[in-house]
Amino acid sequence: NQQVTVNYGKRGMTLEEALNVTNQYYIESDQAVIYKKPTPIQIVHVDYPKRSAARITEAYFRKASTTDYNGVFLGKYIDFEAKETTHPNYIPLKNFHEHQVLHMARIKRHGGIGFIIVRFTPTDEIYLLDASYLENRWNEAIQKSGRKSLPKTLFQEKGYLVPQNYLPRIDYLRVIKDVYF
Amino acid sequence: NQQVTVNYGKRGMTLEEALNVTNQYYIESDQAVIYKKPTPIQIVHVDYPKRSAARITEAYFRKASTTDYNGVFLGKYIDFEAKETTHPNYIPLKNFHEHQVLHMARIKRHGGIGFIIVRFTPTDEIYLLDASYLENRWNEAIQKSGRKSLPKTLFQEKGYLVPQNYLPRIDYLRVIKDVYF
Ligand SMILES: [Mg+2]
Ligand SMILES: [Mg+2]
Repeated sequence: NQQVTVNYGKRGMTLEEALNVTNQYYIESDQAVIYKKPTPIQIVHVDYPKRSAARITEAYFRKASTTDYNGVFLGKYIDFEAKETTHPNYIPLKNFHEHQVLHMARIKRHGGIGFIIVRFTPTDEIYLLDASYLENRWNEAIQKSGRKSLPKTLFQEKGYLVPQNYLPRIDYLRVIKDVYF
Repeated sequence: NQQVTVNYGKRGMTLEEALNVTNQYYIESDQAVIYKKPTPIQIVHVDYPKRSAARITEAYFRKASTTDYNGVFLGKYIDFEAKETTHPNYIPLKNFHEHQVLHMARIKRHGGIGFIIVRFTPTDEIYLLDASYLENRWNEAIQKSGRKSLPKTLFQEKGYLVPQNYLPRIDYLRVIKDVYF
C-alpha cells in the first residue's frame, strides 16, 4: 500500500543500499551478476569459544585497493565505484583514492567497462561517468595543479543521468547497454 | 640467494597465498586484473576512540555468497573458487557452498569464465576444472544421491594440470588462454 511504498522510497536509502537492492534485482531477473565487495578488514584478534562461533575481538578498517562493485553483464566485465556528494555542483577528488583510479585505468586497458556512479544528494540526481574522465582530472590535479574536484557540468556534458524507478531502483545497466554496447 | 629461494618455495605457501602472489604478478606484468575478495565480516560493535583509528571490537565471519576471486583477462570476466584437499584422490563437495555453485552457474550463463582451482596437497598437484562439472556433480549428489565428492580422475579427464613455477607461481591464466580463447 501507499505507506509501505513511501517507507521504502528514495529518501530513506543511502546510495549503497539502493545499489544493493538494484543489483539484487538484476540477479533475480537474471540480467547481470554484480555484487558489492565486502569491506576489507584487518583482523588482529579472534576468540574461539567452545560451542559457539569464532568471535573477532580486535579489527580495523583497511583502505580498499580496488573499487566497490564488480561483476558480469552481457559477457563483459563491469567495475565501478559509487559515491555521494553533499555539494550541489561538484564532488571533491579526495572522495576517491589513488588506488581506485589506477585500478579503473587497468580495467579499461584490459577490456572491462569501468565507471563511477555519483549521487548529488541536494537534488537526488545520479550520474554515470566513464572512468577515463576521473583519471584525466586526477592526473591534471596532480601534475598541473588542476582543480581538485569533478564539476557537475562534467557529468552533464560527458556522463549520463541514471533513471530512478521503483524496480530497478537505479537502472544503471540501461545506460551501460546504450553507451557501451 | 639459494636460502631465500627455498624459504619462499612451494611448501611454505598456502594455496591462497600462492594465488595472491600470482595475481599480484599478473597485475604488475599487466596481463590481467584479478583479486581475491575480502572475507565477509558481520560487524556488531565499533569503538571510535579520540585521536586513533576506529576499532572493531565485536564481529563474526559470514559465509561467502559468491566465490573468492574475480577480475578481467583479455576482455573477459573471470570468476573462480580455490580449495585445497588433503585427500589424495578426491575433494569432498562440502568444501563448496550451494551459493557458490549457483553463483558460478550464473556467471557462465552471462558469458563469464567460471572455474575451480583445486590443490591436492599430498602430491602438490593443482588442477583447473570448469565450473559446469562442479554444478553437474552437485545436482547429481542432491537429486540422485550421487557421490558426495569430486574424484581426482574427473580433474585428470576433464580438467587441466596448472603449471607451477617461481613466477608466476600458479600460472592458471596460461590454461585459461589455451582452453577458453
Ligand atoms: Mg567505496
Ligand atoms: Mg573460499
